[in-house]
Amino acid sequence: MGQPPTLETIRQAERRLLPYIHRTPVLTCSATNDRVGARLFFKCENFQKTGAFKIRGASNAVLSLDPAQAEGGVVTHSSGNHGAALSLAAQNRGVSASIVMPSNTSAVKQAAVRTYGGKITFCRPTLQDREETAREIELQTGATLIHPYNDFRMIEGHGTAVLELLEEIPDLDMVMVPTGGGGLLSGTLIAAKGLRKDLQVIGAEPSQADDAYRSWKAGELVPLETANTIADGLRTSLGDKTFPIIRELVDGMALATEKGILEAMRLVMERMKIVIEPSAAVPLAALLENQVDVSGRRVGIILSGGNLDLGALSAWM
Amino acid sequence: MGQPPTLETIRQAERRLLPYIHRTPVLTCSATNDRVGARLFFKCENFQKTGAFKIRGASNAVLSLDPAQAEGGVVTHSSGNHGAALSLAAQNRGVSASIVMPSNTSAVKQAAVRTYGGKITFCRPTLQDREETAREIELQTGATLIHPYNDFRMIEGHGTAVLELLEEIPDLDMVMVPTGGGGLLSGTLIAAKGLRKDLQVIGAEPSQADDAYRSWKAGELVPLETANTIADGLRTSLGDKTFPIIRELVDGMALATEKGILEAMRLVMERMKIVIEPSAAVPLAALLENQVDVSGRRVGIILSGGNLDLGALSAWM
Repeated sequence: MGQPPTLETIRQAERRLLPYIHRTPVLTCSATNDRVGARLFFKCENFQKTGAFKIRGASNAVLSLDPAQAEGGVVTHSSGNHGAALSLAAQNRGVSASIVMPSNTSAVKQAAVRTYGGKITFCRPTLQDREETAREIELQTGATLIHPYNDFRMIEGHGTAVLELLEEIPDLDMVMVPTGGGGLLSGTLIAAKGLRKDLQVIGAEPSQADDAYRSWKAGELVPLETANTIADGLRTSLGDKTFPIIRELVDGMALATEKGILEAMRLVMERMKIVIEPSAAVPLAALLENQVDVSGRRVGIILSGGNLDLGALSAWM
Repeated sequence: MGQPPTLETIRQAERRLLPYIHRTPVLTCSATNDRVGARLFFKCENFQKTGAFKIRGASNAVLSLDPAQAEGGVVTHSSGNHGAALSLAAQNRGVSASIVMPSNTSAVKQAAVRTYGGKITFCRPTLQDREETAREIELQTGATLIHPYNDFRMIEGHGTAVLELLEEIPDLDMVMVPTGGGGLLSGTLIAAKGLRKDLQVIGAEPSQADDAYRSWKAGELVPLETANTIADGLRTSLGDKTFPIIRELVDGMALATEKGILEAMRLVMERMKIVIEPSAAVPLAALLENQVDVSGRRVGIILSGGNLDLGALSAWM
């Protein structure tokens, strides 16, 4: 499984990824600054290829395979964004990708996987069934399993987003990151703390899927029991590779209610005129709900993705 | 009412506006290019101050008032974007703005006017009642009427958007512009044809509010009778200042159905991850419906605004 990521391996990933990803813009919005009393810098991974940051880790993982491994293709289980990302990463290297998806995955996320040439196998919407179905494909086809977050190459790839953010806005006081399985948070922590120990890094999580918060408080991995949140990208538990990094380096975890997540989505779409998915709204939601003291500070927020089922908005707004 | 606009007066407006507006980005999207078989360059006025291009014309009009006129404040009638824009333009010059709005104007557009300090007076949703109510305020308060589009200073201000677009992407073959009262189209025509006679300029209109199309075909002003379109910014008729410019210079008018407008909005929001209002989707809708031959060409499209009532999406998507 390789060595744990370091700032240096994240920098190597950054060079490796260069031809395959967009350098996404950093946007600001005075109306949103006024609402939270801080200066916010949004790293827009909703504009990233496949509509989410996941292409960073997936590309790094696929590009890191040796030629014999690569030939067998890749397989994963994913509620969506990682599936699309792995499909494109595999397509870019000319190898096959099999994606195991819960049968209740949104139509938009299914279509994205197919757009990039991924082959979908449906499973029941439990973590156990996802993992078993992926394992079967791995055994039958010789494909290499690329786990959505509990994988050092994924973590390294994800860490490149904050490198770009800090290159553009070096004098941030804090970075906030949505947290599901903890891949983005782990990569951000290693990169950010490697560059500047004093830079605060906070994970943000839906209070309806608060395993990272509870694990951080307890100092040990507390698995998620239920995840009844609209932030569909964050319905997963930390893994044994991400949790130790988070426990060691994170400055805090913040929670956001479902109401707050919708309010943050609305604020970003109405005032910034950009489309984000619920998971991406979670850090801003935590700020709107005063869960972190940011007054007068310069805060980077990674807007993790923009793959929103517009039809679903009708049920929420 | 001053002299008709020229390329030179539009360039003067551009310098005048500089401190008061954003230079908006030009975005591209390969998925959208593939759909229409052309290379599209979207000038993102949805990211403009007040969320629409209207601040260009409104600022130019307010900044052009002499000090005595300015002191009396300004008044207009508007279904929304021009009202917000004039409110901010007046606030920037420290004078008052009265905005006459139909009582059925969306909550988002009402709130925007209030945000920028405009004072709203409601009227019935007919052009006659709007104009009469504005005229009363003009007489009672000494405010100067700034018409939403039938005004040379407005047209000049609006013409600055295409100057910026052409500075960034000089080798366009065509520019497409949403058309309601014709202010944006008139300004675009004078600026674009002033710079490059061979550059084609096409106006795009909802087929449910096709007065500009019919006026262009007839060679005389054909007023709009009904305007049953979701493109609420385009429910107005050409005026006696905009129509002569359009008749003389435009290369064609294209129509879009309501279904096409929704499809174009969905495409932009799902693939480009940006929020646009229905009016802004009309040129792309006309392309999706094969109303203009653009195969292999380089086409600029002005995305006129992003002031969307998210609640209304539920009825459409």
